[in-house]
Amino acid sequence: MTSLIEMSDPSSLQYLIGLDVGGTKIEAIAVNEDQKILSHVTLPTDARSQSGAANSIRDAVGAILAALQDGAENVGAIGLGVPGQIRNGVVELAVNLNMKSFPLGEVLFSEFGIPVVLENDVRAAALGAYQYFADREPIKNLAYLSIGTGIAAGVIIEGKLYKGSNGMAGEIGHLMIEPDGPRCNCGLYGCLEVVAAGPAYVAQAERLLQTGQPSLLRDFDLLTAQAIYQAAQKKDPLARQIVQKNSGYLSRAIQLLIMTYDVEKVVLGGGVSHDGDGFLIPILAELAGLRAQSELANIMLADSKITLMPNTYNAGLWGSIALARQMVRNPILEK
Amino acid sequence: MTSLIEMSDPSSLQYLIGLDVGGTKIEAIAVNEDQKILSHVTLPTDARSQSGAANSIRDAVGAILAALQDGAENVGAIGLGVPGQIRNGVVELAVNLNMKSFPLGEVLFSEFGIPVVLENDVRAAALGAYQYFADREPIKNLAYLSIGTGIAAGVIIEGKLYKGSNGMAGEIGHLMIEPDGPRCNCGLYGCLEVVAAGPAYVAQAERLLQTGQPSLLRDFDLLTAQAIYQAAQKKDPLARQIVQKNSGYLSRAIQLLIMTYDVEKVVLGGGVSHDGDGFLIPILAELAGLRAQSELANIMLADSKITLMPNTYNAGLWGSIALARQMVRNPILEK
Repeated sequence: MTSLIEMSDPSSLQYLIGLDVGGTKIEAIAVNEDQKILSHVTLPTDARSQSGAANSIRDAVGAILAALQDGAENVGAIGLGVPGQIRNGVVELAVNLNMKSFPLGEVLFSEFGIPVVLENDVRAAALGAYQYFADREPIKNLAYLSIGTGIAAGVIIEGKLYKGSNGMAGEIGHLMIEPDGPRCNCGLYGCLEVVAAGPAYVAQAERLLQTGQPSLLRDFDLLTAQAIYQAAQKKDPLARQIVQKNSGYLSRAIQLLIMTYDVEKVVLGGGVSHDGDGFLIPILAELAGLRAQSELANIMLADSKITLMPNTYNAGLWGSIALARQMVRNPILEK
Repeated sequence: MTSLIEMSDPSSLQYLIGLDVGGTKIEAIAVNEDQKILSHVTLPTDARSQSGAANSIRDAVGAILAALQDGAENVGAIGLGVPGQIRNGVVELAVNLNMKSFPLGEVLFSEFGIPVVLENDVRAAALGAYQYFADREPIKNLAYLSIGTGIAAGVIIEGKLYKGSNGMAGEIGHLMIEPDGPRCNCGLYGCLEVVAAGPAYVAQAERLLQTGQPSLLRDFDLLTAQAIYQAAQKKDPLARQIVQKNSGYLSRAIQLLIMTYDVEKVVLGGGVSHDGDGFLIPILAELAGLRAQSELANIMLADSKITLMPNTYNAGLWGSIALARQMVRNPILEK
């Protein structure tokens, strides 16, 4: 403890490092105390094995430190958003990195001698999203809903990341939303994730294409959620059917976040959300349908509460910087 | 502010008053600083009009103060749990009390000269439930799920009542749980409340009885959720069918509270829960079914997290005392 506190004397710590670790690439930045980016590195992830992934992360940190040159000794902390379950600096399980019970925090600290803070990537992104909006308007409570390969939410309560008793708060991807839905990887049936995450778009398209219907989707080499949104915007009936159905599920997820946490804002992010208006507008239409039925929905589900995370802002990366900053300011609380 | 702080000098304030206000009766207690009950009053509620209800509440406070005799001047604060929507000491809407935009806090303060704190009854009960369990074991996060005429939850996060940005956190009764369900009072379809609160038990029984099936339920003068639980325990097939179906819905509500808030405990309360094991065991059986399907459910939905609020403990009343105590300790934060 003493050494941590000594290292974290804020007057001597000018720089912070943040990493957004994904299954295919790692993005890293170093910033100064004015939040100015000093260096920016993107490296591929070697996710074939645990040690490969760990080496990729080490390489990214090394590359950022090398770019800082003499400044490297002034780095106060390294924050990382990692796609998996994190507990006390240990990656308990990160399927896309082939990691299990891996003490990533310790490994990086012993290599670089800089305090390290790990967080689940969606929760890190929630912190980044909060930072983004709090810089623009007064806000206390926010939920960040990530729709990508999976679905999960990160929740900010009174300006702080809320993790829950087991670091599982916001894991809404495994709540049943479709009683007749298929079985999810988690074992349950009809989970939000198995009907409305990226792979569900593709699975639904494959099923519908098998019926022999004509569709623009047949022209794509690779069926992806993005391809389906593109086809839907060209009024392809099959793609529109998928988008409408899944927008219904996602509007229910938004309603759930608002009614449970009573947040001021639900921020939508993750790969599937990157189609912008094509993604957002059908969801807002579903929410308008709920508002038309119900006075309570009308009060609680205002369009102004729902917003996309701008594509140009990497919420996960800035959330990692926010984690690093918290550790420098309060090393004991954030251990 | 100054006067409030002066009044709240903890050294001179020995007593607290708590009220649990219901549509049919009002229960009130006064306690000393050791939490010993000094007086206890139960009065009927005149809920025919707003002024009638207000008079009933006034009478209950008056009766408690009279019972304290000279001690009345040492009351630090009055806490009230009220079945409705509360904002800044105003009862915005309490259907069962015929109250709308009624400044109950101000009315009581001007009559008795004692600081008053109002809270929604389910949230007050959540605070009372937290108090109960925190006295027995270390606990930070808890959800209290009330199943009565309606369904709602109150949530304690890191030992504090979490209200959300509009005082609506935990209003899960209006989330869709049954896509084919009937229309709810709120206007939406298939809400948890319209399929699993007390009146839903009765509506389902009436529908099933119309089919002409034999059932013990025909022997009851008044169909209630309690009657249905009694018949189910006597193995009446029709009653068991209702209990099993609704236990499925309630197990989903519990799963939802655990996956969103990641609480250590979900406490079940409210009128429908008063059948004790008859109520709890079918819910635990449904949760066991989820655990059998899923490793994630197995980790998160342990039986040890689910508990009934003991009937002998009035969580709402003790929650009101907790509110009063918070106000005495921190009058500015709790205004």
